[in-house]
Amino acid sequence: MGGRRSDADARDSRAAILRRATDVASAEGLEGLTIGRLASDVGMSKAGVLGHFGTKERLQLEALDYAAEVFVERVWRPAEHAQPGLGRLLAICEAWADYVQNPSFSGGCFIAAASFEYDSRDGNVHDALRTVVRRWRRKLVREIETAVEAGELPSESDPDQIAFTLESLAAGTSPARYLQEDKDVAARCLRAMRLAIGVPAAVAERP
Amino acid sequence: MGGRRSDADARDSRAAILRRATDVASAEGLEGLTIGRLASDVGMSKAGVLGHFGTKERLQLEALDYAAEVFVERVWRPAEHAQPGLGRLLAICEAWADYVQNPSFSGGCFIAAASFEYDSRDGNVHDALRTVVRRWRRKLVREIETAVEAGELPSESDPDQIAFTLESLAAGTSPARYLQEDKDVAARCLRAMRLAIGVPAAVAERP
Repeated sequence: MGGRRSDADARDSRAAILRRATDVASAEGLEGLTIGRLASDVGMSKAGVLGHFGTKERLQLEALDYAAEVFVERVWRPAEHAQPGLGRLLAICEAWADYVQNPSFSGGCFIAAASFEYDSRDGNVHDALRTVVRRWRRKLVREIETAVEAGELPSESDPDQIAFTLESLAAGTSPARYLQEDKDVAARCLRAMRLAIGVPAAVAERP
Repeated sequence: MGGRRSDADARDSRAAILRRATDVASAEGLEGLTIGRLASDVGMSKAGVLGHFGTKERLQLEALDYAAEVFVERVWRPAEHAQPGLGRLLAICEAWADYVQNPSFSGGCFIAAASFEYDSRDGNVHDALRTVVRRWRRKLVREIETAVEAGELPSESDPDQIAFTLESLAAGTSPARYLQEDKDVAARCLRAMRLAIGVPAAVAERP
């Protein structure tokens, strides 16, 4: 019993550290995370935090995995059961717009923030991030291809072009919200996404 | 003569520090800039660098001003003499796409990188950045309004909606290039910009 109890405690404190790490990093960057600050935020010793993750880089990589899971839960999961193709693509866009309006982290989307922080750096965090964003790109491209094959989108649609635009729009809501003080970034993002997809007007007008 | 000579030297070394600071910050962030590293990069003492700027925050603010001037030179200046309205808006988009493909800083557009770094932080750098990006937003909005008034764009065009999309697309080229390894981000960005503006097909087909 004692063993299982302390395993559960260890999982809880690991999870608490990751939640706090992703929250801080979403606003202030993943590079600026310090073990000392995290330890103090979650009420542990520095040695305690290091005991869970070993190195700062390991913590950064696990924070990225954790944030990627949250992204999937918020943006993919609500759309997963929609009809593959245009239906699911639009459901993804709606969930994505809702996510950027009500992000799970205090600084907005962690993946977007980390993308801009690490895109032109080298190293393991960059590489892991590349894997995460490419996996998402492939999901988007596949959905667009399915919509084209089903005749729901024009045959000349360029899946990578559309996916690039959707990614840019979702990320762009963060400076729009915090620097331009655009109020309703979800609506703005979704309108622009539908235009980029080339949704027929009748579908675009859906509430 | 001696006084003028040393004034010129001081201007040169100030400029060298700012060039190096913006270059480093475009790739690794403005927050991570250290006086010690900059001093070593430009071959000065830490006291020498501090003599020019006083504080790290002052250096960050001046680096932002410098990068904003470079942005205006690269994106506004080539378009400035085009016909106000749609002609100038498209000229801006072309210059912007060229800029993101061949940025002046090693990590890509400094303003985009700084926007994602500082959007959800508080403080003077955030505030100065907000001023810079809002000034640019107003320029874009004014050009779109002029195009609408001239009947070059549909009367239902939403200038802030279009400007948000253009900003997002330009910024989005950085992760597209460095994480997705999209080759021709300029062409991709420009195609998406024209679609967002709603350029009539004949104009959009311009080489």
